[in-house]
Amino acid sequence: MATNSESTHNNSLRESPSQQVLAIVGVGLLGGSVALAAKTRGVADRVIGIGRNSERLHAAVDAGVIDEFLTELPSSVAPWTMVVIGTPVDRITSDVLRTAAVSQRGTLITDVGSVKGSICKAISAKRLPDGVSFVGSHPLAGSEKTGFEAAREDLFEERVTVVTPQPDSDAKAGAAVREFWEQLGSRVIEMSPTDHDAALATTSHLPHTAAAALAAVLPEPFQSLAASGFRDTTRIAAGDPDLWVAILLENAPAVSASLAAFSASFQKFQDAVENRDADELKKLLQLAKRNRDAL
Amino acid sequence: MATNSESTHNNSLRESPSQQVLAIVGVGLLGGSVALAAKTRGVADRVIGIGRNSERLHAAVDAGVIDEFLTELPSSVAPWTMVVIGTPVDRITSDVLRTAAVSQRGTLITDVGSVKGSICKAISAKRLPDGVSFVGSHPLAGSEKTGFEAAREDLFEERVTVVTPQPDSDAKAGAAVREFWEQLGSRVIEMSPTDHDAALATTSHLPHTAAAALAAVLPEPFQSLAASGFRDTTRIAAGDPDLWVAILLENAPAVSASLAAFSASFQKFQDAVENRDADELKKLLQLAKRNRDAL
Repeated sequence: MATNSESTHNNSLRESPSQQVLAIVGVGLLGGSVALAAKTRGVADRVIGIGRNSERLHAAVDAGVIDEFLTELPSSVAPWTMVVIGTPVDRITSDVLRTAAVSQRGTLITDVGSVKGSICKAISAKRLPDGVSFVGSHPLAGSEKTGFEAAREDLFEERVTVVTPQPDSDAKAGAAVREFWEQLGSRVIEMSPTDHDAALATTSHLPHTAAAALAAVLPEPFQSLAASGFRDTTRIAAGDPDLWVAILLENAPAVSASLAAFSASFQKFQDAVENRDADELKKLLQLAKRNRDAL
Repeated sequence: MATNSESTHNNSLRESPSQQVLAIVGVGLLGGSVALAAKTRGVADRVIGIGRNSERLHAAVDAGVIDEFLTELPSSVAPWTMVVIGTPVDRITSDVLRTAAVSQRGTLITDVGSVKGSICKAISAKRLPDGVSFVGSHPLAGSEKTGFEAAREDLFEERVTVVTPQPDSDAKAGAAVREFWEQLGSRVIEMSPTDHDAALATTSHLPHTAAAALAAVLPEPFQSLAASGFRDTTRIAAGDPDLWVAILLENAPAVSASLAAFSASFQKFQDAVENRDADELKKLLQLAKRNRDAL
């Protein structure tokens, strides 16, 4: 087991089974923030970062985000008691299964992916090792920023985290995952993976697509005329394209439905402008304002 | 001439023709901010607010936004040297003409409207009194907030103001309007009214419409799942519906074109999701990110 910490640290982990050891697979904005929050709030005694890029993981140790790291999963049973998967949504399923295979009895695994249906279904279809549980999570605390440098110990405070137990989930594991996020400062909502995906298609995947479609039509000569309205409306379009391709396609059926609903809504505004229909336009803008003011 | 200030103040205005007296027609967010910025920066010695609602105007005097007010235009020549029209875009043309009719020789009139073509054209078609000039302006410093309570003396600092002289504009008046905004801290860009409207249809009127169409499709049960992405993307949808009906319809031809361009852009994203076309979706998201990062 190659880590960058002194062997005494590893020994102490092994000799103190009551220690809470948290493994973070994918130490980015969310994974890094889980690490910081868990350490600060005493939820974990030690945090192990797991990833591919040893240079980045070294830097995350130097920045105090994680305590030690692994670039490969151990071949024998690993020392952690909890695992949070922070990799892109198209890698979460395999990372859960690979990590579960080397986890000790009693280990709880969750993730932070923006899509839940395809992931939870794929994992349900597999048999995890005895005593190892997975329950999906999605903290609604993303950002257009990426990387552990943007991680914040207070990222989850006052934010909603959706936890998505399934009918076959261990009830105790679901409760433990809820408690974990609550300990990090989050307000927890439980939903089925399918309900989560339908809601997030509207509240997150649609605005991302609309913001991107808007940014895509800004000609360069108009950039100096884009004031705070344009900037706010397109802020999330600065997000990582690879991450968002994965999110939009993992949740494609629900995303398609939300894009179609938006398209129909936008068409009403287009028609009202085209027809110079002040009454209809006012009704539409009033509905929009009511919905926005309610947030 | 009914004002709320002591007669000595009016006398002093009349007795000191070198005093810079600024009239603000429509003391809202923008008009109020012009008043505050002009006083703070020594651009105006006194500011007269002009409006319909004496209660609101009284409150604006109490808040220190304006020095005195009128609820009707004077019947004889007015004491001001500069007028800024801050009323909704569908009232600007008539407010310019009414104010010009009682302005003294040498008075400069401008406005802060988000639409310029229809207004500048309508005013050009009329003959203003000798020595009274109008050149249109649009400070890109709006907000979803309204009312003088939201006014800020630094609202125009580091912001762009578009000034739209026309071929028949007095060159000296154009230069004076430019200097006025620069004195308030703004960076000035000159454009024709038509070019302004085409650009703003894309950079302001389109994002407003897209944000509203997005807010309109948020079902109430999903509100608790709307995180910062949804909130930012729809922030401007909280704007005043009446103001925005006027803006979108005053600029209807250019707005229709920008809405159609967006609709075509959004359709490409829809198609890519529908076809599960990861390569195409990535290209679209990359273009959006490049445009957004360039701001």
